[in-house]
Amino acid sequence: MARPVTLFTGQWADLPLETLAERAGGWGFDGLELACWGDHFEVDRALAEPDYAPGRVEILERHGLRCLALGAHLVGQAVCDPIDERHRAILPPDVWGDGDPEGVRRRAAERMQDTARAAARLGVTQVNGFTGSPVWHLLYSFPPNDFDAVERGYEEFAERWGPIIDVFDQEGVRFGLEVHPTEIAYDFVTTRKTLEAIARRDAFGINLDPSHFAHQFLDPAAFVEEFADRVYHVHVKDSRRRLDGRRSILASHLNFGEAQRGWDFVSPGHGDVDFEEFFRALNRIGYAGPLSIEWEDSGMDREWGAQDALAFVRRTDFEPSAVAFDAAMQRDG
Amino acid sequence: MARPVTLFTGQWADLPLETLAERAGGWGFDGLELACWGDHFEVDRALAEPDYAPGRVEILERHGLRCLALGAHLVGQAVCDPIDERHRAILPPDVWGDGDPEGVRRRAAERMQDTARAAARLGVTQVNGFTGSPVWHLLYSFPPNDFDAVERGYEEFAERWGPIIDVFDQEGVRFGLEVHPTEIAYDFVTTRKTLEAIARRDAFGINLDPSHFAHQFLDPAAFVEEFADRVYHVHVKDSRRRLDGRRSILASHLNFGEAQRGWDFVSPGHGDVDFEEFFRALNRIGYAGPLSIEWEDSGMDREWGAQDALAFVRRTDFEPSAVAFDAAMQRDG
Amino acid sequence: MARPVTLFTGQWADLPLETLAERAGGWGFDGLELACWGDHFEVDRALAEPDYAPGRVEILERHGLRCLALGAHLVGQAVCDPIDERHRAILPPDVWGDGDPEGVRRRAAERMQDTARAAARLGVTQVNGFTGSPVWHLLYSFPPNDFDAVERGYEEFAERWGPIIDVFDQEGVRFGLEVHPTEIAYDFVTTRKTLEAIARRDAFGINLDPSHFAHQFLDPAAFVEEFADRVYHVHVKDSRRRLDGRRSILASHLNFGEAQRGWDFVSPGHGDVDFEEFFRALNRIGYAGPLSIEWEDSGMDREWGAQDALAFVRRTDFEPSAVAFDAAMQRDG
Amino acid sequence: MARPVTLFTGQWADLPLETLAERAGGWGFDGLELACWGDHFEVDRALAEPDYAPGRVEILERHGLRCLALGAHLVGQAVCDPIDERHRAILPPDVWGDGDPEGVRRRAAERMQDTARAAARLGVTQVNGFTGSPVWHLLYSFPPNDFDAVERGYEEFAERWGPIIDVFDQEGVRFGLEVHPTEIAYDFVTTRKTLEAIARRDAFGINLDPSHFAHQFLDPAAFVEEFADRVYHVHVKDSRRRLDGRRSILASHLNFGEAQRGWDFVSPGHGDVDFEEFFRALNRIGYAGPLSIEWEDSGMDREWGAQDALAFVRRTDFEPSAVAFDAAMQRDG
Amino acid sequence: MARPVTLFTGQWADLPLETLAERAGGWGFDGLELACWGDHFEVDRALAEPDYAPGRVEILERHGLRCLALGAHLVGQAVCDPIDERHRAILPPDVWGDGDPEGVRRRAAERMQDTARAAARLGVTQVNGFTGSPVWHLLYSFPPNDFDAVERGYEEFAERWGPIIDVFDQEGVRFGLEVHPTEIAYDFVTTRKTLEAIARRDAFGINLDPSHFAHQFLDPAAFVEEFADRVYHVHVKDSRRRLDGRRSILASHLNFGEAQRGWDFVSPGHGDVDFEEFFRALNRIGYAGPLSIEWEDSGMDREWGAQDALAFVRRTDFEPSAVAFDAAMQRDG
Amino acid sequence: MARPVTLFTGQWADLPLETLAERAGGWGFDGLELACWGDHFEVDRALAEPDYAPGRVEILERHGLRCLALGAHLVGQAVCDPIDERHRAILPPDVWGDGDPEGVRRRAAERMQDTARAAARLGVTQVNGFTGSPVWHLLYSFPPNDFDAVERGYEEFAERWGPIIDVFDQEGVRFGLEVHPTEIAYDFVTTRKTLEAIARRDAFGINLDPSHFAHQFLDPAAFVEEFADRVYHVHVKDSRRRLDGRRSILASHLNFGEAQRGWDFVSPGHGDVDFEEFFRALNRIGYAGPLSIEWEDSGMDREWGAQDALAFVRRTDFEPSAVAFDAAMQRDG
Repeated sequence: MARPVTLFTGQWADLPLETLAERAGGWGFDGLELACWGDHFEVDRALAEPDYAPGRVEILERHGLRCLALGAHLVGQAVCDPIDERHRAILPPDVWGDGDPEGVRRRAAERMQDTARAAARLGVTQVNGFTGSPVWHLLYSFPPNDFDAVERGYEEFAERWGPIIDVFDQEGVRFGLEVHPTEIAYDFVTTRKTLEAIARRDAFGINLDPSHFAHQFLDPAAFVEEFADRVYHVHVKDSRRRLDGRRSILASHLNFGEAQRGWDFVSPGHGDVDFEEFFRALNRIGYAGPLSIEWEDSGMDREWGAQDALAFVRRTDFEPSAVAFDAAMQRDG
Repeated sequence: MARPVTLFTGQWADLPLETLAERAGGWGFDGLELACWGDHFEVDRALAEPDYAPGRVEILERHGLRCLALGAHLVGQAVCDPIDERHRAILPPDVWGDGDPEGVRRRAAERMQDTARAAARLGVTQVNGFTGSPVWHLLYSFPPNDFDAVERGYEEFAERWGPIIDVFDQEGVRFGLEVHPTEIAYDFVTTRKTLEAIARRDAFGINLDPSHFAHQFLDPAAFVEEFADRVYHVHVKDSRRRLDGRRSILASHLNFGEAQRGWDFVSPGHGDVDFEEFFRALNRIGYAGPLSIEWEDSGMDREWGAQDALAFVRRTDFEPSAVAFDAAMQRDG
Repeated sequence: MARPVTLFTGQWADLPLETLAERAGGWGFDGLELACWGDHFEVDRALAEPDYAPGRVEILERHGLRCLALGAHLVGQAVCDPIDERHRAILPPDVWGDGDPEGVRRRAAERMQDTARAAARLGVTQVNGFTGSPVWHLLYSFPPNDFDAVERGYEEFAERWGPIIDVFDQEGVRFGLEVHPTEIAYDFVTTRKTLEAIARRDAFGINLDPSHFAHQFLDPAAFVEEFADRVYHVHVKDSRRRLDGRRSILASHLNFGEAQRGWDFVSPGHGDVDFEEFFRALNRIGYAGPLSIEWEDSGMDREWGAQDALAFVRRTDFEPSAVAFDAAMQRDG
Repeated sequence: MARPVTLFTGQWADLPLETLAERAGGWGFDGLELACWGDHFEVDRALAEPDYAPGRVEILERHGLRCLALGAHLVGQAVCDPIDERHRAILPPDVWGDGDPEGVRRRAAERMQDTARAAARLGVTQVNGFTGSPVWHLLYSFPPNDFDAVERGYEEFAERWGPIIDVFDQEGVRFGLEVHPTEIAYDFVTTRKTLEAIARRDAFGINLDPSHFAHQFLDPAAFVEEFADRVYHVHVKDSRRRLDGRRSILASHLNFGEAQRGWDFVSPGHGDVDFEEFFRALNRIGYAGPLSIEWEDSGMDREWGAQDALAFVRRTDFEPSAVAFDAAMQRDG
Repeated sequence: MARPVTLFTGQWADLPLETLAERAGGWGFDGLELACWGDHFEVDRALAEPDYAPGRVEILERHGLRCLALGAHLVGQAVCDPIDERHRAILPPDVWGDGDPEGVRRRAAERMQDTARAAARLGVTQVNGFTGSPVWHLLYSFPPNDFDAVERGYEEFAERWGPIIDVFDQEGVRFGLEVHPTEIAYDFVTTRKTLEAIARRDAFGINLDPSHFAHQFLDPAAFVEEFADRVYHVHVKDSRRRLDGRRSILASHLNFGEAQRGWDFVSPGHGDVDFEEFFRALNRIGYAGPLSIEWEDSGMDREWGAQDALAFVRRTDFEPSAVAFDAAMQRDG
Repeated sequence: MARPVTLFTGQWADLPLETLAERAGGWGFDGLELACWGDHFEVDRALAEPDYAPGRVEILERHGLRCLALGAHLVGQAVCDPIDERHRAILPPDVWGDGDPEGVRRRAAERMQDTARAAARLGVTQVNGFTGSPVWHLLYSFPPNDFDAVERGYEEFAERWGPIIDVFDQEGVRFGLEVHPTEIAYDFVTTRKTLEAIARRDAFGINLDPSHFAHQFLDPAAFVEEFADRVYHVHVKDSRRRLDGRRSILASHLNFGEAQRGWDFVSPGHGDVDFEEFFRALNRIGYAGPLSIEWEDSGMDREWGAQDALAFVRRTDFEPSAVAFDAAMQRDG
């Protein structure tokens, strides 16, 4: 299909944007989804320096690339989360500040508002990211959950994200939550609750990444059909179950890439995601946005993999049909 | 097999022991695994009142029942956990105290030591329970875990449980951790780490409940073989996966019994546990302890269920073979 | 569960009711679903002879049986069908008449109205049956269907059945369409269309028979959940797929019982229907009506089978839970 | 393999042959299987105009293409069918005539005889097509079938097609029935009956299209082995099951391409047909005829798809082995 | 069904017949299939002592048992085998003699002739057993087989067994080869070759034991259909695959009962044999002979198992249908 | 990955090395694994003629090829086997000699010692091959095996191969047993026993060919992990199960390529081997040796196949990752 294929830069933030853009352009990508970390897209500079955003665009254009979305996962994560040491490692120092949880959450929320403003300066109308979750740690109900507390978590999410979405509305930018374990929405049930909590506001949609569905045994094509009006952006990533009776689907507190995990992320086309059905579902709902490759595979060289992934998407993503195939057999009445 | 079939009383603690013992005896159980909550077995009274423990035995004997193990899950859970409001609901008031986390954990540890002492008074050598976990909340590594922190969690577990196990040793009682999500060990990998952390002390073993394995896609029979020398007690419980592409194996923060969960506990024989292979593996390692039915099924009347479960175990648990079947074909050389 | 277990008499119409009632009562059934053919329940006599209906009840009561529903499948089939020779064999001679299709359909509709009236005389509020279908023969779209013609078929159904349902309303009786290939509704999609066509009138519901779902690869439990408010009656029947790469799921124009069919009806519990999930779903929606065994199995003696089926239902249909299983672990706040 | 890859033109009849030939030649096809509708191959003109058939050949040769078979599905369908409005839409007006069923069937039979004659003029020895069926509408036996009527349907088929096959014999042309639901043969059982009914005449064989097998759960490779001597021509088409417990394998009276169908046609290599086993079976029986791509996929652009399909066949259809692989290990005795 | 259920005594030969008959009668068996080893049935004594055979019958009758078949597996095995030390352990000393292979084979053949004669004395018309195989050791073709040698093996089998079958014919007794790995026939292909080699003589049929099919992934019901006229006797035994990626289906040269084998024999109903389909197929061909339980399960106590197996067969083996289930819906034309 | 892709020449020994080298070089292989039969690599000449080994290297270099291993399967097979006529066909005449079994085994052992010496002359440090087995013929334990005899077979293997491995040690060459049915090791269990029998000597390792695992239902990736320190060389070959209930996994004494076998060898990527998991496992253990395509497919032209296989390996064998994919998200502490 004519859908542009982009590369999400989050896993390449060790490379300067200039270097990465040159490579990605050479490999044939249509654009980059810029991560708001490393030097790829710095929100504070975009707001402070008039030349910054145009400069980013210029780097991309030099290599035949466009920017169709920003990725603001790390700061977004802190908006609703209980805060611990792990957040310090992924947040800008000025958002972390003194690490007081409520202060961190408040500053993260402000930075997300700024991200909408910065996106607008860049001419980009889609920001993807995480929301964090006040209730993720209640995943397994033991000690038995007070399920009212779960409900209150959704309310808290809506209270914290409402003002952020207000700014998105003002700037004409949309937010795409990447439905993902550890977030307020990670499956069908929780996505329904999340969208209801935020009153199905237009500026709050989904960045759909099917790799988070495979290890939950969820069907991404069915998700596309149910949430057709909220699929604002698509990540192309894959995961693979490796269950043999000894490896747990819960992954055993092991890091990605460890042999004993029950599942792992893999380069697109190497895992359990049924991309054929997924792309057909995207065709059916008329999704015309980018297919953004978020490349994560602990067992594969990333440069080999990025090119392999691009080739996979090019040969798998086809145009929908314009005519019924049996039309040519019938004469007009 | 001659293995006794008992009923774990934890889910029946709303009934006085007298009432429950009468019913369970009437249904044909061989004994009860007494829960250390409700009025079934009160650790403090067992230590304070010389007649208490003998009185419990007497009630059981009146109905043809024995007590082969205690269940001390609720207090054990607090030993290593980060403490929150959910613990208040399951702990005795004097263990909860002012709710200060470290105080709660300390008092819970002391109560577990008392539980070993109380078991000895009752003439019981097996106490089952939970350990809690300092790292369960790090299950999904995002924000990315510092995996050294996971390792430190296992050290903390060992530090907190070492002194408890000392008392078990003194009293000649063994502890059986129920391998279970939310605990320090919930699968093969984490059980290996747990046993190593506690230096494979004899008094620390496993209460094996296969229902926690089915939704992780783990093979309980293979677990029996790998951890043969640590299977100290067995729960008979079942669970059933209900995956249809829309229900998550992570269960969507829904309570047990909700239709949209991807799995749920069910009465033994109604789910995905392969009890045939499980009992054969127990035969192979020579396990001769109780099969203790822990009855949990949100969709079935519990009295109907307890009897159905007992009948299931009686017809499924067979004696191992004493001779090779082809021996009769061969004459002696 | 306390749900009554009845036997549908349609496949036993070669036996006089007296004989059958004696046997079914002896086997332990709670009641009979009387077929409106053979001598089991004759609609015309029930309307013409004041003693007829009470006499039927008396026969049943003599053997400890109740009548909770009528089965009027054969006449119902003719209401919407294109009529051919096969209908002659299953219709009463006065409904068939001269066999002119429109006349047959009209007389069948009138007889269905009479059936509602007769049911009321018998004190029965549930009539199960078929509707026929004007469009079943368009199943495979070749020559390519005019799909507007399919839509018109649903309108025709509604026009023909509306006046019948009017009489059901007047008599306080409900109709239960057995969702089934050859009928206006045979799966999820067509049931949705059927209920919409008839404007979801209260008197038009479903007699759910899961045996028709197994060979279509449909999930009867999911059907229960989606159409919870229209499950008025339940048949217990089973079917079994026998696919081996050479047998077609379409069954090859072979009669039931032929070895080369890709599926066949079998006695309950001998096939592919997941009755565990099915009964759990019925529990969840609070269905308290009869479980009516419609016994069809070409490879089993029917008397052996009827008793086997009754035993199967008795041991499989359990009461739902009255309490949450972990309630006993928590103390009140 | 050296097997030529052709494109069946039936689904492209909206394009003039000249246009289609140019494209297909450019894509790299070896030939076209000309449909006897649209302007691709007009039977009446081929018989009436001496230059017509050579003219068709010339168009093809101009683009490097050959014609190895004709497709006469639409007229063939009318030979045995009960006739309804759907046939009017697919038949030439002079075959339809006044629409009287028996007249339509008779004229369709004559046109099939002419098709054999026209094929001979074109130098083509293979005509593929449908036969229609007097009994397809009896697929599900309710009201219960008189199975003698099914047998009579096979006799009727033989009576109607015998005189057609006489002309094929005279012209040295063979007919290939595309085994397909709605036809006299659609699976193993019915193909056996069909070939017996027509006395296994040499001129009556099979155009094997595996896409019609996948949704019946039939194994096309096993079919090749059983009917090896009657596989006269091969279509390459694919279909995909999309069963999820809510979609019926019977397809719910929905048009191709509707999301709720339980199966659908897809471009070759995108579905459930195991082409690896299928081509190996064709190698084993020595089939050397064309692989004719009949392209049908409601979810894919047909020009993208035709090229994708051609590439798929080229990389999947391999030469059989000429030597045993372990021959080189053995020395001659 | 009225099919008698018997117990094959081969695995109980350590018990005197008197003892075993008392137990089997008490458990409710209908008869015994006497093994021709231990003291159960001694061929030489039956021929030499006129009272021997009647005495055996008397013992059985005392416990309500019949003898419907003999089992002569051990001696039969030596007729065609290459002879090695393993045969010494299973053969009577006078058949083994000096152990010279050809002499052993010749004496084994003569003993099989005597077995037919002895069966006649006992009034039994069915002898089951093994044939041995000259080619079993060529199972995996490396070093590459000379496949003509395999063909010659079937000829040798026919030469050796022809004269034995002559005696069976004379005595009016039939032989049933238990199709089994290590024998001349162990699957579909080799059974076809075996029956052809022996010219489909009536006195040579099959003792069908489905447990040998499960680990070969063969369908016993399909076997019943293909070899319907040669199914002379049926063993009821089961086996279970235990494949986990580390256990080989070839069983690793491990003895039965070892945990690391990829499959093992188990008590009927505890394994992978689909007895439902198997018994239905037996019904379809009208098999009315015994169902003889050959009890082998290395993980189960044999007395517990024999009773469990008998109960399994009694509740699983049902009578075929005498009428079509939809007959009662149709009136006579 | 940078792993070289080579072609094993064993199945091409009918071609002179010069011819084969030219073709393989042209197709793009990196090297050849020379078979020690045909004219590819003659051990006796390599020891007798100083120019022979360098001459082989020269031929290869002329076509851009290296030699990284020798294949000595045929002679190795005779070292431990019971000898029969099949060995004559695969052995050099001077090894066969008079065919006396013990003499053949002894000469084969000496030739294997010479092969190590010849490899050293060629500058090659890896020789792959078979060992034969004294116990393979005891595969199915009937007549019941004396399992001590199996143990003695492993001792005999160690006695025969010890002196051979001594020479390998002297020459600085390693032997790689191809784990394979008919050899002393063919699965996990027997490989464990084999390595223990030979005392895990460094010079005795494994040539891992996953095609022999697929039909045993073994997981080659798990094998790589368990035997990581003994995977010295890798063959790339594939096999495919074709089970349909009538074809036995034991293959029915049919030759490769016969349609009724339950499995067969196929060109890499066309079968059941999960090369994705296999190559990931090789990456994990750091295997950097050759991937040697042993091409065997009875249904495919070998020249088409060799090129198809090379392309398959090139696109499937990827470099492992050098960095963690989420490293770029975290800042240094």
